[in-house]
Amino acid sequence: MGIIRDGSRQAEHSVRNLPNARATLAARYRSVRRQSETLCQPLEPDDYGLQAMPDVSPVRWHLAHTTWFFETFLLKAFLPGYRPFHPQFEHLFNSYYEQVGAPFPRPQRGLLSRPTTEEIFRYRAQVDEAMTALLASAEERLWPEVATRAVLGCQHEQQHQELLLTDIKYNFSINPLRPAYQADLPDTPAGHNTPLEWIEQPGGVQEIGHDGTGFGFDNESPRHRVLLASYALGSRLVTNGEYLEFIEADGYQRPEFWLADGWRVAREHGWQAPLYWEKTDGRWWLFTLAGMRTLNEHEPVCHVSFYEADACARWAGKRLPDEGEWETIAGHEPVHGNLREAGYLHPVPAAGDACPAQIFGDVWEWTRSAYAPYPGYRPAAGALGEYNGKFMVNQLVLRGGSCVTPADHIRASYRNFFYPADRWQFSGIRLADDR
Amino acid sequence: MGIIRDGSRQAEHSVRNLPNARATLAARYRSVRRQSETLCQPLEPDDYGLQAMPDVSPVRWHLAHTTWFFETFLLKAFLPGYRPFHPQFEHLFNSYYEQVGAPFPRPQRGLLSRPTTEEIFRYRAQVDEAMTALLASAEERLWPEVATRAVLGCQHEQQHQELLLTDIKYNFSINPLRPAYQADLPDTPAGHNTPLEWIEQPGGVQEIGHDGTGFGFDNESPRHRVLLASYALGSRLVTNGEYLEFIEADGYQRPEFWLADGWRVAREHGWQAPLYWEKTDGRWWLFTLAGMRTLNEHEPVCHVSFYEADACARWAGKRLPDEGEWETIAGHEPVHGNLREAGYLHPVPAAGDACPAQIFGDVWEWTRSAYAPYPGYRPAAGALGEYNGKFMVNQLVLRGGSCVTPADHIRASYRNFFYPADRWQFSGIRLADDR
Amino acid sequence: MGIIRDGSRQAEHSVRNLPNARATLAARYRSVRRQSETLCQPLEPDDYGLQAMPDVSPVRWHLAHTTWFFETFLLKAFLPGYRPFHPQFEHLFNSYYEQVGAPFPRPQRGLLSRPTTEEIFRYRAQVDEAMTALLASAEERLWPEVATRAVLGCQHEQQHQELLLTDIKYNFSINPLRPAYQADLPDTPAGHNTPLEWIEQPGGVQEIGHDGTGFGFDNESPRHRVLLASYALGSRLVTNGEYLEFIEADGYQRPEFWLADGWRVAREHGWQAPLYWEKTDGRWWLFTLAGMRTLNEHEPVCHVSFYEADACARWAGKRLPDEGEWETIAGHEPVHGNLREAGYLHPVPAAGDACPAQIFGDVWEWTRSAYAPYPGYRPAAGALGEYNGKFMVNQLVLRGGSCVTPADHIRASYRNFFYPADRWQFSGIRLADDR
Amino acid sequence: MGIIRDGSRQAEHSVRNLPNARATLAARYRSVRRQSETLCQPLEPDDYGLQAMPDVSPVRWHLAHTTWFFETFLLKAFLPGYRPFHPQFEHLFNSYYEQVGAPFPRPQRGLLSRPTTEEIFRYRAQVDEAMTALLASAEERLWPEVATRAVLGCQHEQQHQELLLTDIKYNFSINPLRPAYQADLPDTPAGHNTPLEWIEQPGGVQEIGHDGTGFGFDNESPRHRVLLASYALGSRLVTNGEYLEFIEADGYQRPEFWLADGWRVAREHGWQAPLYWEKTDGRWWLFTLAGMRTLNEHEPVCHVSFYEADACARWAGKRLPDEGEWETIAGHEPVHGNLREAGYLHPVPAAGDACPAQIFGDVWEWTRSAYAPYPGYRPAAGALGEYNGKFMVNQLVLRGGSCVTPADHIRASYRNFFYPADRWQFSGIRLADDR
Repeated sequence: MGIIRDGSRQAEHSVRNLPNARATLAARYRSVRRQSETLCQPLEPDDYGLQAMPDVSPVRWHLAHTTWFFETFLLKAFLPGYRPFHPQFEHLFNSYYEQVGAPFPRPQRGLLSRPTTEEIFRYRAQVDEAMTALLASAEERLWPEVATRAVLGCQHEQQHQELLLTDIKYNFSINPLRPAYQADLPDTPAGHNTPLEWIEQPGGVQEIGHDGTGFGFDNESPRHRVLLASYALGSRLVTNGEYLEFIEADGYQRPEFWLADGWRVAREHGWQAPLYWEKTDGRWWLFTLAGMRTLNEHEPVCHVSFYEADACARWAGKRLPDEGEWETIAGHEPVHGNLREAGYLHPVPAAGDACPAQIFGDVWEWTRSAYAPYPGYRPAAGALGEYNGKFMVNQLVLRGGSCVTPADHIRASYRNFFYPADRWQFSGIRLADDR
Repeated sequence: MGIIRDGSRQAEHSVRNLPNARATLAARYRSVRRQSETLCQPLEPDDYGLQAMPDVSPVRWHLAHTTWFFETFLLKAFLPGYRPFHPQFEHLFNSYYEQVGAPFPRPQRGLLSRPTTEEIFRYRAQVDEAMTALLASAEERLWPEVATRAVLGCQHEQQHQELLLTDIKYNFSINPLRPAYQADLPDTPAGHNTPLEWIEQPGGVQEIGHDGTGFGFDNESPRHRVLLASYALGSRLVTNGEYLEFIEADGYQRPEFWLADGWRVAREHGWQAPLYWEKTDGRWWLFTLAGMRTLNEHEPVCHVSFYEADACARWAGKRLPDEGEWETIAGHEPVHGNLREAGYLHPVPAAGDACPAQIFGDVWEWTRSAYAPYPGYRPAAGALGEYNGKFMVNQLVLRGGSCVTPADHIRASYRNFFYPADRWQFSGIRLADDR
Repeated sequence: MGIIRDGSRQAEHSVRNLPNARATLAARYRSVRRQSETLCQPLEPDDYGLQAMPDVSPVRWHLAHTTWFFETFLLKAFLPGYRPFHPQFEHLFNSYYEQVGAPFPRPQRGLLSRPTTEEIFRYRAQVDEAMTALLASAEERLWPEVATRAVLGCQHEQQHQELLLTDIKYNFSINPLRPAYQADLPDTPAGHNTPLEWIEQPGGVQEIGHDGTGFGFDNESPRHRVLLASYALGSRLVTNGEYLEFIEADGYQRPEFWLADGWRVAREHGWQAPLYWEKTDGRWWLFTLAGMRTLNEHEPVCHVSFYEADACARWAGKRLPDEGEWETIAGHEPVHGNLREAGYLHPVPAAGDACPAQIFGDVWEWTRSAYAPYPGYRPAAGALGEYNGKFMVNQLVLRGGSCVTPADHIRASYRNFFYPADRWQFSGIRLADDR
Repeated sequence: MGIIRDGSRQAEHSVRNLPNARATLAARYRSVRRQSETLCQPLEPDDYGLQAMPDVSPVRWHLAHTTWFFETFLLKAFLPGYRPFHPQFEHLFNSYYEQVGAPFPRPQRGLLSRPTTEEIFRYRAQVDEAMTALLASAEERLWPEVATRAVLGCQHEQQHQELLLTDIKYNFSINPLRPAYQADLPDTPAGHNTPLEWIEQPGGVQEIGHDGTGFGFDNESPRHRVLLASYALGSRLVTNGEYLEFIEADGYQRPEFWLADGWRVAREHGWQAPLYWEKTDGRWWLFTLAGMRTLNEHEPVCHVSFYEADACARWAGKRLPDEGEWETIAGHEPVHGNLREAGYLHPVPAAGDACPAQIFGDVWEWTRSAYAPYPGYRPAAGALGEYNGKFMVNQLVLRGGSCVTPADHIRASYRNFFYPADRWQFSGIRLADDR
């Protein structure tokens, strides 16, 4: 996810409804920044540099890159007399802004032991101090731009907080010792069999996109009308138990369920189950942020690629929703659910009688919508605009946030996006059907 | 393009408006089959086995695979007592139908010298004879299915005729001798400067998709309504001269015009101009089916990837159309233009005062629409249905046909599709803009 | 093998004992040249362009490259007024002489359909005519150099004749139809169990290297003394039956028999048997130039890499000989055996009571000697010298010729060389042991 | 180097002249083990996990693997009641002993953050304590084997000490900050122009190989006679200044100096100078363990591959020595020179009037001898024997030790070996010539 990601994301054009006081924004800034460091508490010094595949970044890099963002787009631009912490950090911690100089090659981030973690924490401290000064002292005429960028920087850092967790999970997963990020995470509820129901929606013109209330990335705008045919949306997420049926129906061996590109990728990588599933002595186990756990049938299936989600839907005689269908229904739902603050850091079974259930949190829901500009979308000017349009090809939209998404970071119009073969995010399946 | 392509295409659910007489269909069959062989006349025996990259197929393979289609889906299924020409051709000439047995690996097609070209022509002769018998003798109750499949087989073969030309062009291009497919192709008109105008289209609901008249592939259906914002479509294709301006404005060196994936691909391959462009002693040359020719500024630019088309549009301050926008305007145009029958086998400058110009023929026009199912689309059952849905990811839709597309094979609702990095098709650029 | 090979071979410094008459050399020239064309008689026009892996070359290329050698090093240099057949053949048919201009990339040789086979035969005819003129008319003062190069050109062409056969075998082997090069090759004798005996050789100083009689490549010189410890050499080649015991003793699964690099390569490629062995319904078959044949236990094992030869020897508690050991014994043997002229084009069981048996012909025998310069060896000057020293690293020496080596091309001092993972040559195993 | 290396090295069959007292061996053990930890003192916690290419290993891994050696081959085998530190370390820290279970994939060693460095130091402490107990208490009948293995373990650890330094140098070199391992290393002497002289050696039979005095790896045995032609050996190493002449004579652009495989590799990697050379503003700099330094013309050239060494020798009209030639002369020289204890950790200019100079220390000297078994060599039985013969293919022998080799680890008969493209060792050039 994210602005964050190279090979990723979006920014905002403009901050609507700016915080009405500098103090509020300063507090928000401090809180977000502190949260990143809190997430590092369970780690050993040895863990900060790990990068087990090109798609993930070391923890150390996340900590520095988010700081670089504030230094580059706020402090260098607006704080008189600000002296950068180190002349080469520009190059080392740029993610993909080609207009800010060639970024350091992403797959090699794990090969940098210097600056050390300790220096990076000092870098954070210097930037935090300077940001506090800037937020307190920026001239009134500059304030709108300063505030806009500061809010964006906080959102950006929150995206990286989610990535920090998805990345450390992947990095630990390839260690034969299967280390836990946090061995004492709370157990998830056992759950029970919740019947899948269908939320019926008649066809017609709907409005989707950011409604102007609060922060939104520019890829959520402009709000616009879409024409939908009649459809139905599944009341809850697809569970591990249901996905197991797909596996046991030889789903991974039957090409008729698969997109051609997905079939090829699944063959090449030998996929036989979602990422992090392991079968030991006839029993399925899942690698989690708390270490290995036995599979719970009632939990939502997680860590599936778009290809697997699509194949499973096809096997079930259904399909994935498109993003307009999803947002039309989600737009009426309150933002609550198993998000990061719930503390599980793992999807949990549907509970209660909410319908739809699990719209927010648990797992990002793959849609069949290619990630593309909304009608009338125009990228911003300058380097900050670079992450607007440039990722709008080859990726699919995911919606709803996950168990590692901060609650104050998600909303119905939020568009996440990944490549169809990606599996290391907390990504799962909600079914849809034509009517 | 095509059913043809592994890594491709679509079929039809149903043939609408079947030929009203068996004789008509038999004549159509003979004419299409003969045409494939006519296209081979300029070739030397040595040329039939060439495969210069995995995406292209040898001529020999095109000739056999199209024949295999009739043998597999018509003769084995419906002609009593039919004996297949060779037991292993099933495996050798299947393209991608996983349900008909594992296909022979595509990148190795050029490594088969047996069956020889001569045997393949005998294979064609046997199948043609049997098809003539089948079309004459099929029982009335089977006729609708026989006719449907025979029509589909002819359309399929026409798609391969286009590929045969695009592939032989690529295959010849890497030979330092730069051989001509047909050295005596007619010269294209010199052309002149035609101003680019904008066709204005107010927003609203439009209908797109196959209207039920004549043949259509199933990916064109169902016809359905789309909601468009106001837009404008360029009156003609982007020319070589205009594209040269993009090159000379350092278009290939400026990341701000490029999608991130495109920038990476262009770097990796060292793209500095469209495929087949060569600069010699300060002058641009193009490799064509008639050999090397100097660049004509008024011709439409051709052999650009989606990434280049998109970057060029961005540089121009415009964008590519989506397929609904394209079809809304093209749906009112007659199907004529520089198609294969014109005999140029190369795009030609816009002429006359038609507006829009060059809608059909010349070059396939990249849209920014991801190739995806239309609302309500359902793949057919069985192996013939395999090419319906399975390619609907990671590709972009192209519209309008090219100078190597048969005139009776194209229509406004026709959806071609390729990966965004593909350049060996006759693919070019029409601009669009928001209003 | 060969001068021939890019990634290969040797030439001669000087021809010793030149043919005493121009007529003799002209006759030799015609005979060798005719032989290349005779070898093509079983082929279909479709076969000439095949290149199924980078190590092999198309038949068409062998025919042209050997001709290029005469044109470049004889006709252009010595025949007044000679006009090259085509200006670009210099580039297209150079194999690896960097000093004669950059060669055309080897792995793409199969992608050239032009010049056609028919043109290449015309090229051969022109060069043959001009060579006849040159051999008849060269001035006396130039004759020694002309004769030296002409002899070298003939030896070079003979090396390519062997490659033409090894390459066509490989090219056909990957075709599921398993076509025969010559279906009516004579059956090989059934053979019988010949006990393996040991030829004992006391240690001491021996002489090896070319003795100055007749032609020799420069890598065979200078003749020099070597100091050998006592050893024993196997009286015959290792048979299929013996190699099968190695396989059935899990030889391919037991790392203790393998060199580390060999173990890695065998894992990567999934080797479980020599190249061209196929197990069908519990029975072993071999692909041969006559098509598929059942395995004959008494035949020498063939198409093994150095790694397999070495592992098999280790499993047997023996080792491979070094080249000094081999030549010391072979130097006393007459040059006869199952060479190309025997017509089998396949190894045959040992017969009779010769001891050692099978020294010449059947299979090239891997030695454990790294291919390196003899003491005092100096590469020749100029482009012809380029193939002298430049391959003397990373390869191992093979000795004795094979069933596809011309009889008048082999001798005891002949040093062939290939990489340790190469298997497509007719290469086998003779054991040695310390004493 | 080393036993150490996967893709490496040798062991000993037997320890000759065992330490005459347990105390001596125990002291030796403690000293070697302490030295490994001393080498880590300049490192930051962040540095221990770095692995910037597959050939190098993380510091953490070197510390654990050397410990694993003692645990596996001594403690588990001979210390009653020894409890392994962790059940999975067997798998994690095995380097390449296939018979001790499949090793953890080498290229992924840098992806393990657990066990942490702190745990690995605890692992070392436990093993050291147990080794002390074993060396004190081993029964007399077991002592010879215990002592043999303990000595081997110490030699093994010394090999890894050299690798630890070569690897950390490589790991730091790719960091744009160019961190120093030890910024305060002593400056190397400026040196001066020392003329290159030739040590003449008449041909004849010489003896090489380990003479039975002190420790030797089994690849140095048996001592045996070799027959040498007359030759001359350069009196000192090739200098940076001389190598610069080669560069400035377009040595990297002229194929006539290069082995074919070397030319290909140099093209592929874009080599234009030795590893760690950087040209900035027209001036050459070298990356060293003390950071960036300007090039000193009088220092021996270092970090060249065999291919570069061979090409430079050819350009100079000379050649590399073979190992018999080298050892024949070195066998008369005392073991002293710029070895690790000198503290430079960098090669230094020749000084004084010793002739030959720089035989030991400074840089490993490439020979043209393929790494192969000596006559009569037989690998040992069991897993400890696995590193004897299995690397004897595809590598070249280097002699003489380097500025990072412990002085008590090197001798005239010592055979180091690397692949011809390897450059990250301290490897350089001594010339030889025929006479």
